[in-house]
Amino acid sequence: MTDKRAIIIDTDPGQDDAVAILAALGAPELDVLGITAVAGNVPLALTQRNARIICEWAGRPEVPVFAGAAGPLLRPLVTAEHVHGKTGMDGVPLHEPAMPLQAQSGVDFIVHTLRTHPAGSVTLCALGPLTNLALALRLAPDIAPRIKEIVLMGGSYFEGGNITPAAEFNVYVDPHAADVVLRCGAPIVMMPLDVTHKACTSAERIGWLRALPNRAGNLAADTMTTRERYDVQRYGEFGAPLHDPTVIAYLLQPALFSGRQVNVGVELAGELTLGATVIDWWGVSGHAANVQYMTEIDADGFFRLLATCLARLP
Amino acid sequence: MTDKRAIIIDTDPGQDDAVAILAALGAPELDVLGITAVAGNVPLALTQRNARIICEWAGRPEVPVFAGAAGPLLRPLVTAEHVHGKTGMDGVPLHEPAMPLQAQSGVDFIVHTLRTHPAGSVTLCALGPLTNLALALRLAPDIAPRIKEIVLMGGSYFEGGNITPAAEFNVYVDPHAADVVLRCGAPIVMMPLDVTHKACTSAERIGWLRALPNRAGNLAADTMTTRERYDVQRYGEFGAPLHDPTVIAYLLQPALFSGRQVNVGVELAGELTLGATVIDWWGVSGHAANVQYMTEIDADGFFRLLATCLARLP
Amino acid sequence: MTDKRAIIIDTDPGQDDAVAILAALGAPELDVLGITAVAGNVPLALTQRNARIICEWAGRPEVPVFAGAAGPLLRPLVTAEHVHGKTGMDGVPLHEPAMPLQAQSGVDFIVHTLRTHPAGSVTLCALGPLTNLALALRLAPDIAPRIKEIVLMGGSYFEGGNITPAAEFNVYVDPHAADVVLRCGAPIVMMPLDVTHKACTSAERIGWLRALPNRAGNLAADTMTTRERYDVQRYGEFGAPLHDPTVIAYLLQPALFSGRQVNVGVELAGELTLGATVIDWWGVSGHAANVQYMTEIDADGFFRLLATCLARLP
Amino acid sequence: MTDKRAIIIDTDPGQDDAVAILAALGAPELDVLGITAVAGNVPLALTQRNARIICEWAGRPEVPVFAGAAGPLLRPLVTAEHVHGKTGMDGVPLHEPAMPLQAQSGVDFIVHTLRTHPAGSVTLCALGPLTNLALALRLAPDIAPRIKEIVLMGGSYFEGGNITPAAEFNVYVDPHAADVVLRCGAPIVMMPLDVTHKACTSAERIGWLRALPNRAGNLAADTMTTRERYDVQRYGEFGAPLHDPTVIAYLLQPALFSGRQVNVGVELAGELTLGATVIDWWGVSGHAANVQYMTEIDADGFFRLLATCLARLP
Repeated sequence: MTDKRAIIIDTDPGQDDAVAILAALGAPELDVLGITAVAGNVPLALTQRNARIICEWAGRPEVPVFAGAAGPLLRPLVTAEHVHGKTGMDGVPLHEPAMPLQAQSGVDFIVHTLRTHPAGSVTLCALGPLTNLALALRLAPDIAPRIKEIVLMGGSYFEGGNITPAAEFNVYVDPHAADVVLRCGAPIVMMPLDVTHKACTSAERIGWLRALPNRAGNLAADTMTTRERYDVQRYGEFGAPLHDPTVIAYLLQPALFSGRQVNVGVELAGELTLGATVIDWWGVSGHAANVQYMTEIDADGFFRLLATCLARLP
Repeated sequence: MTDKRAIIIDTDPGQDDAVAILAALGAPELDVLGITAVAGNVPLALTQRNARIICEWAGRPEVPVFAGAAGPLLRPLVTAEHVHGKTGMDGVPLHEPAMPLQAQSGVDFIVHTLRTHPAGSVTLCALGPLTNLALALRLAPDIAPRIKEIVLMGGSYFEGGNITPAAEFNVYVDPHAADVVLRCGAPIVMMPLDVTHKACTSAERIGWLRALPNRAGNLAADTMTTRERYDVQRYGEFGAPLHDPTVIAYLLQPALFSGRQVNVGVELAGELTLGATVIDWWGVSGHAANVQYMTEIDADGFFRLLATCLARLP
Repeated sequence: MTDKRAIIIDTDPGQDDAVAILAALGAPELDVLGITAVAGNVPLALTQRNARIICEWAGRPEVPVFAGAAGPLLRPLVTAEHVHGKTGMDGVPLHEPAMPLQAQSGVDFIVHTLRTHPAGSVTLCALGPLTNLALALRLAPDIAPRIKEIVLMGGSYFEGGNITPAAEFNVYVDPHAADVVLRCGAPIVMMPLDVTHKACTSAERIGWLRALPNRAGNLAADTMTTRERYDVQRYGEFGAPLHDPTVIAYLLQPALFSGRQVNVGVELAGELTLGATVIDWWGVSGHAANVQYMTEIDADGFFRLLATCLARLP
Repeated sequence: MTDKRAIIIDTDPGQDDAVAILAALGAPELDVLGITAVAGNVPLALTQRNARIICEWAGRPEVPVFAGAAGPLLRPLVTAEHVHGKTGMDGVPLHEPAMPLQAQSGVDFIVHTLRTHPAGSVTLCALGPLTNLALALRLAPDIAPRIKEIVLMGGSYFEGGNITPAAEFNVYVDPHAADVVLRCGAPIVMMPLDVTHKACTSAERIGWLRALPNRAGNLAADTMTTRERYDVQRYGEFGAPLHDPTVIAYLLQPALFSGRQVNVGVELAGELTLGATVIDWWGVSGHAANVQYMTEIDADGFFRLLATCLARLP
């Protein structure tokens, strides 16, 4: 054990997943125990491969990468190639990774890590659909009280959805898994669209990354520029929200964010609202708070923090 | 036929229903053909009585008042005495009305009026749950193409709900009726919480009504003051949204409002989201627009218009 | 008032509706106050016309026929031309009826009749989807305690469904209406597939009708023969269930039937089971019984009773 | 590999689970690779213990017993102590088992066994809620095409339910797991209430077991007698259905059973019908058949087969 904060990154890279993983690998305060891939933005065969490519970009091929679930608990897999491109990481050139995929399942890695590390010492950072976490919690309910914290990107309340009018992508893809995670009893911090839509790219902010004298900065800048192009086309506005890196930023500088301790539920039965996260913002439901739900961010501070992290990489 | 715009007010008074009805009766541009009461804020026995009291306040006992549905199409009735008080019109003294309740059902009145007036000449103003309108449309589908416009207060998207975390009161009370109305094919203008939460009372705005040298202004001011007290207690903020009068204001000065022509659906199956209105703000659902959904208002202009209308009453 | 039992027949003819109506008109014990048509087996324009044709076959053009709802409360109309043919009464020649359709709505007729006849004196016989009854109950909740009895053909439990694997046609077409009726508090007798599948045609039974020396017997026999052909093709077995006439037979000879007083609910939320009637046969749900649910019939007695009734017609 | 049929028994003992496991251990044609316990009739702590007790009764302490899921995928656990007693095996004395519980998870055992045995050689026998099988299929989708056959006790169609009016216990407890299993693509044989209700105890049939000169016969006879007492009290009829042993009997003498190859779905959304199995008996849904659904049994042959199996035990 070191003084570093031990984390597992569960992820479906994904353009902004890539930036988040790079930031984590560049942060000296974090000890990335492993990366578990899940199907989401693109199928599992791509997300686990992308995760390895990202580790190699960061010069960290020793970080173990695992493949987890190939699809949601119950529903058919929905992907987002329209956003992230066919590879999941449009806008940057991808090489064939040399580092291996671990033989162990990502779900088993999560269970084993939580059981073998001291209780309350391991944080789960979830950047994609929550299938791996839910399977781990169902297979091994004893791990729930051993989790230090789950910090996840997902959900929306005031902003509407981004995959349907009512639902955010990560929760929509596996709403049942989100439900399992939200009920597990561990401390949870959520980064919903309500906060990530306030963390948009701009020429100036992308410039801070582009100015870094290393490959990581340019990869991140290229990724953001590509993503921005999609959002401008779709919403007619400038700047693209940078979702997943907020999870890593929170671990490093929680004071960048503010929100409210509230009850969050997931709609599992709705026809129009499947996967909507229902936030009891005014505390009227009588259900206990289970989530620190973030709605505000110091966006400039956030992008500067990302630049600081990425600056330490090759 | 006059040059006035012929309207039927369907309502569940209700504090802000009262202000809306007074404003309509004070507007020379409007011809109130009748008022149909529905169960909502309080039970039908009170809403039909309150509607008659309001007509007498306005010196208009000749306006016919009808009782419609005593409860929603399918669900048990949910009321809102916690907001509007036991009588439905907390904050002002209520007398025993002398004018009669009409024998005909409010639903029959809606059907008969639309059939006997020229097609496209009658506007339905809905200030409560949409049960009466839905029953009329189901009994007599031929009336749908004869409706000039339905202008209704209800729904929410960016603001969350006010009766549950996901649903606005009027739609929640009878979501099935709202679904029938939203699918009926007539032109619809919706005033959701997204706009009414931008039309809040303030000392200055209430003052404009209090300054009127008549009873109507003082009744409206008293009503708003009472309502404000509730909202301050509940939300810890000053100013209470004035929901229903936006419907009347739109008929008189549509330029006070802006919004978007969108598809609006009602969630009928959700466990957490029953009665949520799902707005396809970005046009991603592929469903045709069926509603002019308002989100912006000139609030000062709105309160000044109300004062102008109420000034013409006793 | 006479000594006869006063009934309203709510119906969507329909082959077996035709036999049921003929039987009712041939029964001296019954006073058919009116016939209200509803959309179901075929659209409303056909069911109201067919109802008038049937009255003329019976030599009873003075029986008032009304058009009710053109479609279900909430769902799109599903019809059954694959069973009943394009006209709804395949197998017999149809003439243009001379008797008029009443101007009043069938729903209004039900409300008005129940309000103007002595409480507890009028029985509602429902042979199709329950839309008209539900609309009447919602418009005028005061009629519920005035209903003597509702006797309806619909539902299934042990037999599975006939329109989907889980649902019987009449309930499936308007499950929400069925829910309203089942909760209305009036005494209800149900004739589900569990009983009608034990009331199948046979050469002998059809022969009893064919042997009648009048037109009515032959029309009924032709109708049954046509229907039987459909069932043989579909289920590979001989004999077609005769659904709707069980309702009339029950009014005349209740001892032909036996069943159990149970709680019956309608599934409104299921994906595979929409419109399934859930029978608490063993009394385990804790919900009060609301229906006399028939499961057994003296089938020979039933067909003989039909022949007796039809013998009195032209 | 031997000539024996290799099976894994997934189970929640449970009175009739006990008889089924004893029968399997007494059948020379079967090679019980392991027993995986799941929460169901009673909680997991009891089902895994009961499984070990049963193995010791059979003199087979070398059969590995594993603990699997402690609760359903999504829903809270529902148990059936009212049927099976507080221990899950009412009616027979229970000792403290000496054989150990395996450290490996039952879910991992299923995955590992299917991956390491020849494809198409291992049969899964499921006697309880299907949580373990569903978790294995979600963790390792590659195992689905390696399963020889899944033979399971669960579901109902013509018989109604036994835990709710619409649902059979095993499917109701974890309907989502049942859905995963039914869609997995492996060959499936179902033993629903439609067949087990035709396999009831009688004095004569219990006598065949009681007459065995060993402990196993008496344990089975005692179990059935206790169970019968419950059913007589509840349903007022003699004879209790023997559910789970039909799964083992099918492996040994499939000709005892007959049924139909049909599509089976599970209702996941219904309010009254959650967990109902919807059988497309007449092939009207257009969905491909996924199950051999049994409805008929040679009950005497079945009880005689059980006696033959149990006779080989101590």
